[in-house]
Amino acid sequence: MTRRSYWAWGLETDEPTIVEREAAAARLSERHGRTFEAKPILPAEQLGLRAPRVAIPTALASVLTVDAHERASHTYGKSFVDKVRAVRGLFPNPIDVVAYPEDEAGVVSVLEWADQAGLVAIPYGGGSSVVGGVEAPEGSRPTVSIDMARLNRVLELDETSRAARIQAGVLGPALEDQLRPRGFTLRHFPQSFEWSTLGGWIVTRSGGHYATNHTHIDDFVESVRMVTPKGPWESRRLPGSGAGPSPDRMILGSEGILGIVTEAWMRIQARPRFRASAGMTFDTWSAGCEAARRVTQAKLWPANCRLLDPVEAGASAGLTGTQALLIIAFESAELPQDHNIRVAVGIARESGGRIDDEAILIADDGAKEKTVEVGRQGAVGAWRNSFVRAPYNGNMTAGLGMVGDTFETSITWDRWPDFDEAVRMKVNAALRRVCGGGTLSCRFTHVYPDGPAPYYTFSGLGTAGGELEQWAEIKKAAGDAVIENGGTITHHHAVGRMHRPWYDQQRPPLFAETLRAMKKTLDPNGMLNPGVLIDP
Amino acid sequence: MTRRSYWAWGLETDEPTIVEREAAAARLSERHGRTFEAKPILPAEQLGLRAPRVAIPTALASVLTVDAHERASHTYGKSFVDKVRAVRGLFPNPIDVVAYPEDEAGVVSVLEWADQAGLVAIPYGGGSSVVGGVEAPEGSRPTVSIDMARLNRVLELDETSRAARIQAGVLGPALEDQLRPRGFTLRHFPQSFEWSTLGGWIVTRSGGHYATNHTHIDDFVESVRMVTPKGPWESRRLPGSGAGPSPDRMILGSEGILGIVTEAWMRIQARPRFRASAGMTFDTWSAGCEAARRVTQAKLWPANCRLLDPVEAGASAGLTGTQALLIIAFESAELPQDHNIRVAVGIARESGGRIDDEAILIADDGAKEKTVEVGRQGAVGAWRNSFVRAPYNGNMTAGLGMVGDTFETSITWDRWPDFDEAVRMKVNAALRRVCGGGTLSCRFTHVYPDGPAPYYTFSGLGTAGGELEQWAEIKKAAGDAVIENGGTITHHHAVGRMHRPWYDQQRPPLFAETLRAMKKTLDPNGMLNPGVLIDP
Repeated sequence: MTRRSYWAWGLETDEPTIVEREAAAARLSERHGRTFEAKPILPAEQLGLRAPRVAIPTALASVLTVDAHERASHTYGKSFVDKVRAVRGLFPNPIDVVAYPEDEAGVVSVLEWADQAGLVAIPYGGGSSVVGGVEAPEGSRPTVSIDMARLNRVLELDETSRAARIQAGVLGPALEDQLRPRGFTLRHFPQSFEWSTLGGWIVTRSGGHYATNHTHIDDFVESVRMVTPKGPWESRRLPGSGAGPSPDRMILGSEGILGIVTEAWMRIQARPRFRASAGMTFDTWSAGCEAARRVTQAKLWPANCRLLDPVEAGASAGLTGTQALLIIAFESAELPQDHNIRVAVGIARESGGRIDDEAILIADDGAKEKTVEVGRQGAVGAWRNSFVRAPYNGNMTAGLGMVGDTFETSITWDRWPDFDEAVRMKVNAALRRVCGGGTLSCRFTHVYPDGPAPYYTFSGLGTAGGELEQWAEIKKAAGDAVIENGGTITHHHAVGRMHRPWYDQQRPPLFAETLRAMKKTLDPNGMLNPGVLIDP
Repeated sequence: MTRRSYWAWGLETDEPTIVEREAAAARLSERHGRTFEAKPILPAEQLGLRAPRVAIPTALASVLTVDAHERASHTYGKSFVDKVRAVRGLFPNPIDVVAYPEDEAGVVSVLEWADQAGLVAIPYGGGSSVVGGVEAPEGSRPTVSIDMARLNRVLELDETSRAARIQAGVLGPALEDQLRPRGFTLRHFPQSFEWSTLGGWIVTRSGGHYATNHTHIDDFVESVRMVTPKGPWESRRLPGSGAGPSPDRMILGSEGILGIVTEAWMRIQARPRFRASAGMTFDTWSAGCEAARRVTQAKLWPANCRLLDPVEAGASAGLTGTQALLIIAFESAELPQDHNIRVAVGIARESGGRIDDEAILIADDGAKEKTVEVGRQGAVGAWRNSFVRAPYNGNMTAGLGMVGDTFETSITWDRWPDFDEAVRMKVNAALRRVCGGGTLSCRFTHVYPDGPAPYYTFSGLGTAGGELEQWAEIKKAAGDAVIENGGTITHHHAVGRMHRPWYDQQRPPLFAETLRAMKKTLDPNGMLNPGVLIDP
């Protein structure tokens, strides 16, 4: 079986070779008139990781490993910072031990050992964190990373209620593979889909496929089971309830500091058979924004309502670079969607959106092959492919000297244009200061009646070896701008260790105190992910 | 200004006179062949309330009152039990002092005084609780009821984002009166609408108008401001966020034990201009259930999707008593709804639903008067009037010797038919045991893709003076049946003091411990609503 790469997005087979990386460096050198150099990336065994600071007990020998590749793989997530550090071989604080429990009882055993041995325990799903969510804290306590990969099954499927009991460690594709033969889907497709898990989605409040209506994983949770140092926590399966504050909503977003989610009953859906989509162009970014707002406030609830600014529309969807692109798509398992798409297009046209009637793609039941094709065509299809492949893009240039990242937020419509202007001004200024310039672009990944969720991408020329500091300065400008102008530090990437400075400004101070009290109740020795969300 | 009744739903002008109550008793006597008797209901001043156990400080004299009518009015909510006790003049544990703060600073002052004086403080919205949510706990601590009625204004309205900053003490009609001139509505219409407040809706996770999609008040909250004994708590206005567990979701459902909500930014909507509705009949209850499930799982998101069993359809909508009635309605501020209603009717017909095409009511923009009329016609209109008037019905017969109440829950579809059977069997058995028989009926008030929210109504002949014990035995059978068969003890009535025994079985035990830790953090002296949701 091909192993996961310890540094790249994906498998070891997704890692570019040194020859490919040298070619990429040469291309960058030519394009930018400066020398870029690809240095070899060491095999994990040659990283010289600090020896594990704790011994593996015999009783857990089948579940724990100190293999160098496993330890390196679990030391970082997959952020820009993570990749740069990994490619450079910087592993000053590696995970000491990696655990692969077979089942919930195994998770409990590992937690009990960790508690007795005074360890830090870090729940690990797919390792796709881009916010330092799976990283060991500084300090003298040895760290065990608890990889949930073996809890990867759909345990029950209730066709009548459209719900399934699913183990938390299942990756997106394996989950869909188990639901597909029964005609169902969770239909939660974050960009990290291939390398993230149900449990990870739940504890980070992942934002998925849908651009409108129910989209966060929060909405698909029917009940959750979690193990904590004080015992199990399981909520009742209910379609809705008004009995006290929702226990599930305390777990959603808890990022592993309260316990480890082992399974959940999730609301699933019949697989879509009817689709309709339209890619509409706008002469200005603000006209596109207005259209997105109006379509959403009309409560048509399109599955997709993504708006790309002219830069992104040029780069991801093959447009000219002067037009914004609004992608609207409807899907249904039950009903033709031609009515909905025509109404949505009509609204967007009123805001200056352009599309030929023939370019509105409608694929109804029966036209199965046509259906498949439709989604892959034209600007919409180009965007979709680019969405799925995007996380792999950073593999080739990691550590060559480029500085780039994404950040995302949400903001109410009344503040939006000023917010966008302020964020762009601050981040562009930082890019000029740090990189002598660069690119900054934006898209809406999700749209709510009361505001959009903008997603920014920046990139500039750094200097090899200096990228971490250069990134930090730009990231600080971005985070400060988002918080000062009223946004959230994260709409769906989570807080982790990276976003703490801004998260601390955002959440009510008394809320942090209650969260600390909750953690103290469930995890009195503070072994679970200390430093994430709140200070120990 | 007409005062609120201290015992009846509504104002003193809604109280039946002794002559009317005697006539009602005579009708009951004739119908049931047993003597019913209406005794006079005392004015509050003659109830002989225990003297207030705390003195009003001079500094708060303009805000506090020990008026007997005020104290009696704030001692109970409006449940069956509350009305019976009030009508009988049973006030063994009255509220000592009632506070009417003018603003948030006033709320803080009252809380500070309450804390210093060692009082219990009970937040009071509209007083419509049917679960003992505003009642003083037993014990020696004097109790102040903090009535939020004077915090009743819409403070800001953001038309672009469709959101408004609203004070928590505003009653439903006054709230809508302030939004209407601007063309907006909160569109949250619980049955208690006239006599319940925004703050009450938030802390009890009220279920409103919508039968599908976003319906709980939870979904309309953009941010909340709450004062606690440890200071203020305010969340950021955000359309969506993935930054840690949601602070707002900790307040939603907290039933006044963590703090007092003073204002909230709420998502509002343009007022509907397009309406379509259909009342469809079914030969069996189970065929109606199947239709409700299928319409909801098709994700058409009707505003109304209420199913009445044959008993309710006979009583509330004038049908024969042998057919179930499914009311489906769509509303939109933007778009004609004829397409949606026809699709929904088509699905329901596949499950055996019947309606003539001409009986499908469609009212589009422009047809304003027609619109108004449409909603009031036929079975749909009959049901609607009965919905709004229902809470007044208990006024006439309160304390005459009838025993009746409602209880509501939610349950996944896979368990539904067995659940319904088990609940009916247990409650009917209790009715026979206690009242020698009676009626039990059911409707769906809300429908989710994974299950319905059934709402049961029971009624039987009790004996004057024995109703409280008789009610308790039937209520116990109902609560036990709901919990044993997998439901929630409340979908939208809240927990209060009444539902504690079953709520304690339902919520994860560790969740109760974390809630206690949260309360201890915010309310270290335990003055806010002790005994609600958790033990002090």
